[in-house]
Amino acid sequence: MSTTVENEWPRQVTILGVGLLGGSVALSMRRTVPGIRLVGLARSPEKRQFLTASGIVDLPAETISDACEQSDVVVVASPVDRIAEMVISAAESSPEHCLITDVGSTKRQIVASVDVHPAASRKFVAAHPIAGSEKSGPENATSSLFDEKLVVVTPTETTSPELLEKAHQFWQLTGGQTCEMTPSEHDTHLAAISHMPHLVSALVAKIASSEALPLAGSGWRDITRVAAGDPTLWAAICSENRAAIGSELKQFAEELERLRQLLQNADDAALHQWLTEAKKIKEQSP
Amino acid sequence: MSTTVENEWPRQVTILGVGLLGGSVALSMRRTVPGIRLVGLARSPEKRQFLTASGIVDLPAETISDACEQSDVVVVASPVDRIAEMVISAAESSPEHCLITDVGSTKRQIVASVDVHPAASRKFVAAHPIAGSEKSGPENATSSLFDEKLVVVTPTETTSPELLEKAHQFWQLTGGQTCEMTPSEHDTHLAAISHMPHLVSALVAKIASSEALPLAGSGWRDITRVAAGDPTLWAAICSENRAAIGSELKQFAEELERLRQLLQNADDAALHQWLTEAKKIKEQSP
Repeated sequence: MSTTVENEWPRQVTILGVGLLGGSVALSMRRTVPGIRLVGLARSPEKRQFLTASGIVDLPAETISDACEQSDVVVVASPVDRIAEMVISAAESSPEHCLITDVGSTKRQIVASVDVHPAASRKFVAAHPIAGSEKSGPENATSSLFDEKLVVVTPTETTSPELLEKAHQFWQLTGGQTCEMTPSEHDTHLAAISHMPHLVSALVAKIASSEALPLAGSGWRDITRVAAGDPTLWAAICSENRAAIGSELKQFAEELERLRQLLQNADDAALHQWLTEAKKIKEQSP
Repeated sequence: MSTTVENEWPRQVTILGVGLLGGSVALSMRRTVPGIRLVGLARSPEKRQFLTASGIVDLPAETISDACEQSDVVVVASPVDRIAEMVISAAESSPEHCLITDVGSTKRQIVASVDVHPAASRKFVAAHPIAGSEKSGPENATSSLFDEKLVVVTPTETTSPELLEKAHQFWQLTGGQTCEMTPSEHDTHLAAISHMPHLVSALVAKIASSEALPLAGSGWRDITRVAAGDPTLWAAICSENRAAIGSELKQFAEELERLRQLLQNADDAALHQWLTEAKKIKEQSP
């Protein structure tokens, strides 16, 4: 009697959108789930060739229906404005027991769009792994991208406990640490800690003059690192989470006005206090 | 006849303020100038003990006068609001041929304060190596901190060509690449590319809520890295370069308002264009 334990679940995982994140999901699952079969959607022959040659996927598929029909888990890793439609398509061709999840940086609109399709909604648990890079594409994917990273899972009132448990299990297999919140809570917090800061970073880059730019040091380079991110991805995030980001930018503008007053009034003690408070919060961060 | 070439100049360098930058100047000079004697001002016995035990300086000195009396070069590496007074003191006790330089992140007020003391002014060439860290203290000093880094030298109309040449030679010996501009040009450009971005980074940290903070990813961490910097150093920089920083914060606030309008008007094409321009400038940076 063999005692070899082969992982029971998931036996097949499909990635729709094999870029940096989707590719890293595949590589991380291959690392932790022996014998797993990884399927990746790729429309072009070149991409199918690259994905199999690089070992990211075992089976490239040309259509969502081919990609999903035998999968235990489907991960949608497309830009946020295309996730809901791909979840709905994946639900049509995947087995009844399939978990569909995603990696989108916004959650409320995606979940709301899927929710009006009960056949998709009952397979879907939205998720957002807090991991990424200003780089993109499967050539930058790594098996360790999600290690120790928080993965926010955002169930709704109709999500079944069994499916939710599967979502936690899946994301933990990638190396991530899962937590739960509502889609709205997620979007509010991410606007504050990711989306608004991204726009601020881009703004610092955007107003740099060609005379000053050669004097940029490591501080400027770090502050503006994410400004090299893909404008299409970020425009989509802004569109999906417009209200929360707008509210965060307003709060930023108000605090900026307070800072300008401190500086203008030559209130150096207050400015020192202000910088000390910022340092304190920075040092409380993960 | 020995043909050993011993470096003729500088034979002795004094560091006033042996922290991250001052310590790194010492370590870089020891690396490139065989036989150099490094003197460091340190008021406390503990610090004198650390500086000699760590090999950062050869001779610790308790007073500016003891530290400077036989030096070819004096480097003032104190917080910006104390540089001018230390340059003036160093000029009193250093040899006539001595070069006095500094590492301050602001230049205009320092140069103006020294300029009214002709005995100090004729030995002083202000400088700003574009290198640093959110860390501080001589324990974080490295011999390679200035390698390939730009060092801005800011002579005035009264700086002698011989002294200016010495300043270039000295900073090149640390591993840096020197360039020249006026103190005012320096302060205007640095407000744009360093001081304003620093305050923006601190602002992003300062308004992070305790609910959102656990969701911080690598983007937020990079954007806010410099917010961990020393509030005392940065409050002094803001005070010394108040007008230029105020002007940059105003420009930032105006562009922020434009961005908020784009977002509020759901003008996604314009937002995409805005993000694309920021990315383009980021990618032109050093």
